[in-house]
Amino acid sequence: MSEKTAITPATHAAPPARFSHGVRKGNILQVAGQVGFLPAVEGRAPEVAGPTLREQTLQTFANVKAILEEGGASWDDVMMLRVYLTDVDHFAEMNEIYDEYFGEQNLKAPAAARTTVYVGLPPGLLIEIDALAVLG
Amino acid sequence: MSEKTAITPATHAAPPARFSHGVRKGNILQVAGQVGFLPAVEGRAPEVAGPTLREQTLQTFANVKAILEEGGASWDDVMMLRVYLTDVDHFAEMNEIYDEYFGEQNLKAPAAARTTVYVGLPPGLLIEIDALAVLG
Amino acid sequence: MSEKTAITPATHAAPPARFSHGVRKGNILQVAGQVGFLPAVEGRAPEVAGPTLREQTLQTFANVKAILEEGGASWDDVMMLRVYLTDVDHFAEMNEIYDEYFGEQNLKAPAAARTTVYVGLPPGLLIEIDALAVLG
Repeated sequence: MSEKTAITPATHAAPPARFSHGVRKGNILQVAGQVGFLPAVEGRAPEVAGPTLREQTLQTFANVKAILEEGGASWDDVMMLRVYLTDVDHFAEMNEIYDEYFGEQNLKAPAAARTTVYVGLPPGLLIEIDALAVLG
Repeated sequence: MSEKTAITPATHAAPPARFSHGVRKGNILQVAGQVGFLPAVEGRAPEVAGPTLREQTLQTFANVKAILEEGGASWDDVMMLRVYLTDVDHFAEMNEIYDEYFGEQNLKAPAAARTTVYVGLPPGLLIEIDALAVLG
Repeated sequence: MSEKTAITPATHAAPPARFSHGVRKGNILQVAGQVGFLPAVEGRAPEVAGPTLREQTLQTFANVKAILEEGGASWDDVMMLRVYLTDVDHFAEMNEIYDEYFGEQNLKAPAAARTTVYVGLPPGLLIEIDALAVLG
């Protein structure tokens, strides 16, 4: 019997509904959909890192990573990243940022699998990412 | 060696293709995308619970829950809920219904992670939800 | 401690960014989003199997299957297939192709669960599929 635990990094505001930013049970860790919100400031509404795809993508990665680390995992444990973009024309630029970011993460294990699709997101948001990790 | 079993609640019509409403293998249970269809009536086409987001969301939750329970799981075992809406303007109302529903479910474990994105669905459907559970 | 391994079938071109076509760790195998690209020809850009939903769907299935098999799995191990279509009007035809294809695969275990949603994809692509498998 493994206990299910919620993962709530100090940088993250409370979710807008009864869900967890991340949950871990046994060796499975699931990260909820993250967007480019800056670290939460108490008493203020969530603020996006910037209007550009680059700013939002890097902040989204930071937000996913914070949950992984709070749950005892790292990028090396991630099996799947789901990338939601709002615009097909952002694919090439997202891939550039993706490669640059993961090139700097000193991964010791193979890169995660990935699916990228184009959906609607709330106004002002260009990217959302969630992750499934399996720990060692 | 764990056996893979299909989960088919009595309330559910046969899927429209060769997939299962739910499958379990070992401690992993996957619920297929559920929509707001009322309990199946033999010989009749699936009927949606109603035109409103509230009616469809509550029925969709009931349909997910029926699969979890038929597979020996509960909401407490759910790691991830994927919520597909057709309209960004439905986000706030869906969150209200979500909180109300889970507030009544007497959860003993932390809430699941969640991703919400906005996609196309067949005409008349406003919400679809799938779930990944890890049993205790 | 299970090792995480990348799965790269000989038929597949290098991914367009730092992600893996498939990864396996312990008994979990994740297949990245696959589209209808024909087997890779060195020095040439990826080419889609054809303009029709049928051609692309069958090629996409072949691409998913190649990753499953390279990772030591089969369709019988698949728990979840996520099907992304670009057009709601393709649902019925996709289901026909789906049933025909899986009817020929001699499955020994129950069919996987499935979610189908309608999203944007890069120009010329009508379908994308990813898969989560749990090995025996």
